[in-house]
Amino acid sequence: MFPASDTVLVAAPAATAVFTAVLTGGPVSRVRLARRLGLSSAAVTKAARPLIERGYLHELAATDRTGPGAGRPASPLAVRADREFFVGVKITADELIGVVCDLRAEVRATARRPLADPAVDGVLTDVGRLVDDLLDAVPEHRARVRRLGLSLSGDVDRTTGLVRYSPFLHWRDVPLGHRAAEATGLTVTVENDVKALTAAEHWFGEGVGAESFALVTVGTGIGCGLVVNGRLVSGSYGVAGEIGHIAVDAAGPDCHCGGRGCVEAIAGTDALVAQARERTGRPDLGFDEAVALARGGHEAVRAVFTRAGGAIGCGIAAVANLVGPTRIVVSGEGLAAYDLFDTPIRTSFERQAFGAAARCPLSIRPLPFEEWARGAAAVSIQSLVLP
Amino acid sequence: MFPASDTVLVAAPAATAVFTAVLTGGPVSRVRLARRLGLSSAAVTKAARPLIERGYLHELAATDRTGPGAGRPASPLAVRADREFFVGVKITADELIGVVCDLRAEVRATARRPLADPAVDGVLTDVGRLVDDLLDAVPEHRARVRRLGLSLSGDVDRTTGLVRYSPFLHWRDVPLGHRAAEATGLTVTVENDVKALTAAEHWFGEGVGAESFALVTVGTGIGCGLVVNGRLVSGSYGVAGEIGHIAVDAAGPDCHCGGRGCVEAIAGTDALVAQARERTGRPDLGFDEAVALARGGHEAVRAVFTRAGGAIGCGIAAVANLVGPTRIVVSGEGLAAYDLFDTPIRTSFERQAFGAAARCPLSIRPLPFEEWARGAAAVSIQSLVLP
Repeated sequence: MFPASDTVLVAAPAATAVFTAVLTGGPVSRVRLARRLGLSSAAVTKAARPLIERGYLHELAATDRTGPGAGRPASPLAVRADREFFVGVKITADELIGVVCDLRAEVRATARRPLADPAVDGVLTDVGRLVDDLLDAVPEHRARVRRLGLSLSGDVDRTTGLVRYSPFLHWRDVPLGHRAAEATGLTVTVENDVKALTAAEHWFGEGVGAESFALVTVGTGIGCGLVVNGRLVSGSYGVAGEIGHIAVDAAGPDCHCGGRGCVEAIAGTDALVAQARERTGRPDLGFDEAVALARGGHEAVRAVFTRAGGAIGCGIAAVANLVGPTRIVVSGEGLAAYDLFDTPIRTSFERQAFGAAARCPLSIRPLPFEEWARGAAAVSIQSLVLP
Repeated sequence: MFPASDTVLVAAPAATAVFTAVLTGGPVSRVRLARRLGLSSAAVTKAARPLIERGYLHELAATDRTGPGAGRPASPLAVRADREFFVGVKITADELIGVVCDLRAEVRATARRPLADPAVDGVLTDVGRLVDDLLDAVPEHRARVRRLGLSLSGDVDRTTGLVRYSPFLHWRDVPLGHRAAEATGLTVTVENDVKALTAAEHWFGEGVGAESFALVTVGTGIGCGLVVNGRLVSGSYGVAGEIGHIAVDAAGPDCHCGGRGCVEAIAGTDALVAQARERTGRPDLGFDEAVALARGGHEAVRAVFTRAGGAIGCGIAAVANLVGPTRIVVSGEGLAAYDLFDTPIRTSFERQAFGAAARCPLSIRPLPFEEWARGAAAVSIQSLVLP
């Protein structure tokens, strides 16, 4: 998080627990909070007081759920969603997608901007313009925004804000956090885009309260966000969830990462297009055309998608066999061709999932790029409480 | 844990935290404990009192580490290691390996017993005899043992004590926990052998205090124990760490699990022997002979080990890419041939580890079967505090 001088909102364990519980769990009474967190009522009140004073939490109107004569009515604590706003931007190879979210990660505004130049300076300039576009539209947002979350695919060190490697932007060792903080004047978080999307699901989506789940994204990159034992897995060396770089075919193609037979080298969008071009002898074939050919019954192109689905299914089975998530959500822009992938993904998952791991349900949920930008904002919201 | 009526020693969160911290972290003063656990000194004292009264904890002689005039001397809390003993038994296809451990998981006695009959009834009879052999030797052990931990390879549900699938014993859906409790009169835990070994490392070995680590075992089976976010990963469906059933070769051999190209189908001991027999045309070749041939320069047999090492390295890289452990320990009886595996494991790990994940150190540590039996005992010790 940059600049480092912008300290977190809460640091004491009890205050962090109270704020996080109200933020992710919706309005909740002090009594329930105390019970759930193993704190005394006095400790909850003490932890909440400065957050109320600073306007982040407030007490809802007293409700009397327990009937007459049952003592003091409960006044649930709730988040004041418009206390602070957060900009989230997902950086792709050719476009920036931005959102403004409130403290509850509800999207308040969206904007997109084509990326003129994938070099670092060009991206920073365009990020600055997109942030201005987003904030100029609503004075209230401009007045109450302090933080910007960025997300992009590749090897990102969230702690230092360093982009170690971004294959699509051809970046290596870019201190994006520092540079974006200088460029925008905001406090910046940087996270891998899949981990950011998983963070949004974990704190504000269907992952709330889940002990473990996995979010697999299929597209140009193939990635995976993992929550295990109730927390996002970030990896001791900043690398985790790289399902796209699991080797599933010893005779498979070389991957841009230096590996061989990686899931992404077989089933990433670029790999699919390259294989479809080779099978058809049409060097100009695009992704949509390849999908149309496969749907139209072109056997050789259809086989490309079938092989890809098989590779993805093997990767998902590896996740299930290693960490055993309660459920696995599959999403990403590659899902536009899901009708071609669906059966081979499920067939190879069921074949490779070991024993009871095959009981893990796979659910499919398309997510537009704005949801990915919301993920970047969610990481920024998390930085209020996480060091 | 069976019978279920044998309740855990401690159930309240504070008492569990205090007992676990003293058990795994060695003697520690109340002041340090309070600080580390975020509890008041009074809460630590209250939590420790019943454990002292029941003889599980005691106060060491007062030490005055802070110099004269620094207030009351500290009396560190320590575990009374001989308060209770635990039997651990690892079940293999042809042998039972047993140990008696104290409360600190120190091995006090060992014994082995060939397995006359791999059917359930035969194994239960032999487990009973082995337990008697172990306990009859030392009256103190017999007098203070209440719990038995069993471990074996395969798909085990720790919560219900059910062995869903054991490929080497050809068992399916065996309620081993219930049956062994009936047969021995002890309270029984059942765990996958690799997870049990990992539990021992996590609570009593080099994993103490580690946020994440992985233990990969190479032998007849190829398995992996994972600690992520400070806790052993057990899998929502009882399956986790099944590195042996990650598919790494689309054209690879069928596996006993129903999958294809699994690491274990290429690099498990049985698979190595089968491939070496095929390459040499000698249907009687054993594992040790295959190793000798490879070491002697037999190119075709050497290639079998090289391919196997490559498959193991791909599996280890999948662990590093997905969960990013701080370190990975590689062990198991297959390590007898480590000189043949070493380079191909490291080469394929380095090729397939994504970006900074390649910085994860691989360390190699041979472990005799008695250490695996100690793992089973460690799970039994854990059942004092974990529901």
